[in-house]
Amino acid sequence: MPSGYRDWRLISIAHEEGNLNDLRAVLGNDVAIEAYREGKLPFPDGAIIARLAWSYVPSVENNEAFGRPQSFVAGTPTNVQFMVKDSKKYAATGGWGFAQFDDRKPAHVVAQDCFACHVPAKARDYLFTRYAP
Amino acid sequence: MPSGYRDWRLISIAHEEGNLNDLRAVLGNDVAIEAYREGKLPFPDGAIIARLAWSYVPSVENNEAFGRPQSFVAGTPTNVQFMVKDSKKYAATGGWGFAQFDDRKPAHVVAQDCFACHVPAKARDYLFTRYAP
Repeated sequence: MPSGYRDWRLISIAHEEGNLNDLRAVLGNDVAIEAYREGKLPFPDGAIIARLAWSYVPSVENNEAFGRPQSFVAGTPTNVQFMVKDSKKYAATGGWGFAQFDDRKPAHVVAQDCFACHVPAKARDYLFTRYAP
Repeated sequence: MPSGYRDWRLISIAHEEGNLNDLRAVLGNDVAIEAYREGKLPFPDGAIIARLAWSYVPSVENNEAFGRPQSFVAGTPTNVQFMVKDSKKYAATGGWGFAQFDDRKPAHVVAQDCFACHVPAKARDYLFTRYAP
């Protein structure tokens, strides 16, 4: 796993329902954050995107404070995914390497499968996530 | 607004339903992050917590990629709130100053009202948000 990724700056956040049922944060290293903020496309080599996810759990204590059931927070971590830009090394998958870690151990993901799902975002260099100001 | 807060590190994220209907990220300055990670209580003077929020919007393009309606992302920013630890200056409100900015302009919030809702989290120095590993 790229060292220090938990300290990287925030790109945006999301909630996935269904089987994923998570809250997720997308962080970027300095190269990635700079590219996002400046609208650089394609992302330069060295950019790394980290997608952290946690189980989606209701917060009893938040709900009590708000006076109604409305609050969902990040629970236990599920997995962490990375996209690493290296236009030569990963030329076959849009210049991006893909990796997933479950419980900090490499998961058996097939980069071509990751890439296939990211193709619709080709116009934004295969990144679905938009920077949240 | 505290300068550079958008670059601060991530504490955790949440989704609020109801009138708020947002996705929110809680960031901390270095003092706050260190206190969270080390379990320091109370938080030392100088700690600042930033709560950013964005409208909760379905992502058509993510849903198409996933093949089902399940994805919600951060839309337009709603407001930003801060908690600033200064145990002397804000002694009347648990040592925390409270502020809200709407569209980058100070909102008319009453610190006592903010504090009143945070009292149930007194055992964690009035912070509801837990650090997401």
